[in-house]
Order: sequence, then C-alpha cells, then structure tokens
Amino acid sequence: MATSIFKLGTKASTARFTGPAFVNTLVSDPGGVYNLAVHDVKFEPGARNNWHSHPQGQILLCTGGVGYYQERGKPPRRLEKGDVVEIPPDAHHWHGAAPDSVFYHLGITPNANRGQTEWYGPVSYEEYRQAAKPAF
Amino acid sequence: MATSIFKLGTKASTARFTGPAFVNTLVSDPGGVYNLAVHDVKFEPGARNNWHSHPQGQILLCTGGVGYYQERGKPPRRLEKGDVVEIPPDAHHWHGAAPDSVFYHLGITPNANRGQTEWYGPVSYEEYRQAAKPAF
Repeated sequence: MATSIFKLGTKASTARFTGPAFVNTLVSDPGGVYNLAVHDVKFEPGARNNWHSHPQGQILLCTGGVGYYQERGKPPRRLEKGDVVEIPPDAHHWHGAAPDSVFYHLGITPNANRGQTEWYGPVSYEEYRQAAKPAF
Repeated sequence: MATSIFKLGTKASTARFTGPAFVNTLVSDPGGVYNLAVHDVKFEPGARNNWHSHPQGQILLCTGGVGYYQERGKPPRRLEKGDVVEIPPDAHHWHGAAPDSVFYHLGITPNANRGQTEWYGPVSYEEYRQAAKPAF
C-alpha cells in the first residue's frame, strides 16, 4: 500500500478533476528567485485531472501507487513509484490514478512565470477505460 | 525504516562527500526546455556533502529518513520526510544524514544554466557532531 510523503493538500476543484484528488503546494514563486512551482498530488482510485497543457511543460515524479499519463493522440502510459514523465510544453495531456489504487506524484513546473495552465475539459469514461485496461 | 522511491544512483565523489551517498539524476537539461536539474540522493547514516553553494539556489524535498541542513553561521536544522528546504542563491551550506539513519532527498535546481555548484571543503567532525546532537 502506497503511503504519503507530504501532508495531504486541499481538495482539487471538481471543475478540473474527475474524482477526489488533493494538491499540496510545496513551492510557488512565479517570477521569483526559483521561478518554480512544485505540487504534491494524491489521486484517490479512479481520480484524474481534465485534459490540460502547460506553456512551459512539466515534470512528474511518481512517488507511490499506480496511475496513468496520456498525451492527446498517443497511447496511455502506466506509471508506478520511481517513474519520471517529461511533459512537453503545450502538449495536451491528463494524469490520474488506476481504478484500484491511489496514485501520488510530484509536479514540477520550471519557468513558472511563462503563462498559466490551460484546461480542455474532462477525460471521458471511454478514454479512461482504455487507459485502465486490463485493470478494468 | 525509510525505503527508496527511485533507483539507487551512482556513488557520489569522495572529493565532495564524507561517507557513502548515491546520486540518481532524474532530470538534467541546463539551457534546455525545462532548464532544470533534479537529483535523488540517498545518504547512508553519517554521510554528508561538503560545504557548497548554488548560484541559482536549490529546493530540497525530504522523502525519507532523518538528516540535517545547515547554512554557514546558522544553527543546523533537523529534517524528516515531508520537509521542504529553500536554499538561497550563493548560500554556503551542507546537508546529510543523521548518524543513526539513512536520509533521502530530492534536490531541484531551477535555472540550471545559471552557473555551477561551488565547493568549499568538508564539514568537520565537530560541525557534524553539533548538528547531530542529541543523536550522538
């Protein structure tokens, strides 16, 4: 069973997530000394964020549980503790937990002052089901 | 007992560390898309790096075990899983494990192309002993 490293964050907006997820902001100083944002995210089983993109890209460090990452038009990738994802700038993508496991990752956004995350609506049940095979 | 998240890295140089430590480079693209370096470090009990500084500063995310962080002229800080350290640019400092525990942290260096780490020689036994009170 995956355990947390950081304190549980605040519940993520249902406008941007399907299912319960919690976001703990560890670092955030856009335009500051580090110009960096670091978030620790816990997804409950089955939870995922909506399709979105980052103008500066983002790094995911998977720290516990099992989850998925998918870029638009590409096959989903299964993720476990220790996996690293380099999300290219402006790539439409989503990430979230397996149906039968929590999922923890750190999200590292460098060059934080280079624009905001853009959001494109929920991952459909069918898109999620395809990612979750054969767990479903 | 603290357990690892990422694969064990390569042994750190004895020219820059006292005692065994292992560094796994998860991201490194100075001047690239992310302009970022992320290292996962495992310190064996008692191991620590030499006094050093980063021109761009660095963020430490403590992911397991017990360790210390100290800036020159300031009292040492005891670190545990979940702690975050914001190291200012050019601050002379060291970090490492308690004498009786391993210590794991991620080191995040934003703006990676803004110069190299500078090194200033080992943490003395007396400096380490002061940090490790009352564990010693």
